[in-house]
Amino acid sequence: MIKIKIDEKTNNFSNTHNRGMTFEKEINESNEFYKDENIALIYKRPTPIKVIKSKNSVITEAVFEDVSTTDYNGVYKGRYIDFEAKETTSKTSLSLANIQKHQLEHMENVIKNGGISFLFVNFIELDLYYILSSELLLNYIKENKKKSIPVSYFEEHAYKVKRMLNPPLNYIEYLELQI
Amino acid sequence: MIKIKIDEKTNNFSNTHNRGMTFEKEINESNEFYKDENIALIYKRPTPIKVIKSKNSVITEAVFEDVSTTDYNGVYKGRYIDFEAKETTSKTSLSLANIQKHQLEHMENVIKNGGISFLFVNFIELDLYYILSSELLLNYIKENKKKSIPVSYFEEHAYKVKRMLNPPLNYIEYLELQI
Repeated sequence: MIKIKIDEKTNNFSNTHNRGMTFEKEINESNEFYKDENIALIYKRPTPIKVIKSKNSVITEAVFEDVSTTDYNGVYKGRYIDFEAKETTSKTSLSLANIQKHQLEHMENVIKNGGISFLFVNFIELDLYYILSSELLLNYIKENKKKSIPVSYFEEHAYKVKRMLNPPLNYIEYLELQI
Repeated sequence: MIKIKIDEKTNNFSNTHNRGMTFEKEINESNEFYKDENIALIYKRPTPIKVIKSKNSVITEAVFEDVSTTDYNGVYKGRYIDFEAKETTSKTSLSLANIQKHQLEHMENVIKNGGISFLFVNFIELDLYYILSSELLLNYIKENKKKSIPVSYFEEHAYKVKRMLNPPLNYIEYLELQI
């Protein structure tokens, strides 16, 4: 069992965690499965990078741009799907510090246009996966003005995703409930 | 009136063309309009870039990755929208040389999953804009085995988009016909 420490405040994807497969990899492999089986088509968005200098298609200077959308988007049964993935080693709550204001605005816009928008959360140490609708997320932030969401809130209001062999995370069940 | 020459074979976006606004800019401004008016939410995908070396969030070595999806995707009335944009200075046909095999596969996958997929084409010198459904595009390629599509095919089978002031390209009318 490999264990590494990651910053709880940033909630960033770690390179490895206690099961040897990152949350990001689990999502990507699930998406591969859904694609191969013609169940859904969901992609990770490329990180926006601003190229400053390039020569013969090799980039010699560039910077990461601010993220204004979410990690993943795609299509399930014709419907637009859009979500942000966050993981944390905290056993008590998910910090909201790493969700940008622009991302919350993006979620609102997706909802306004009839898309299915959510936050996909992995509590690594608890081995728990939750999907929280963006409607509930935005409402929580608006009403509570807190900088984190306790696990208990997820237990009560979020959809629990089970880890499987293939796909690693069968989150299509959640989408099925939304359409 | 500014005129520049671009390679007809590549169909790449030019930096300026005869009206002073590129096709890409016209699409992006239309998308801004649709976003502001809560009509649709459609984004240009970031160019996928593989970072090789970076230091303090400045990238010092990177390469452009192969494009395996299309230029734009998003949501209109809950439906998933996905399209590729191509422009050409040719007055007779659109070269297919710049549409990658992976992009055609992506279009097929979007269709299979119930999304709305199309090719948005600008014949710069003719001042014409067409939307060709990916179903027709894929069928054309399959049946004709040609490396270009004549303008006459667009005239007969594609949806003609009119240029306006705001949004510059009112392509939402096409989407409305598809849902």
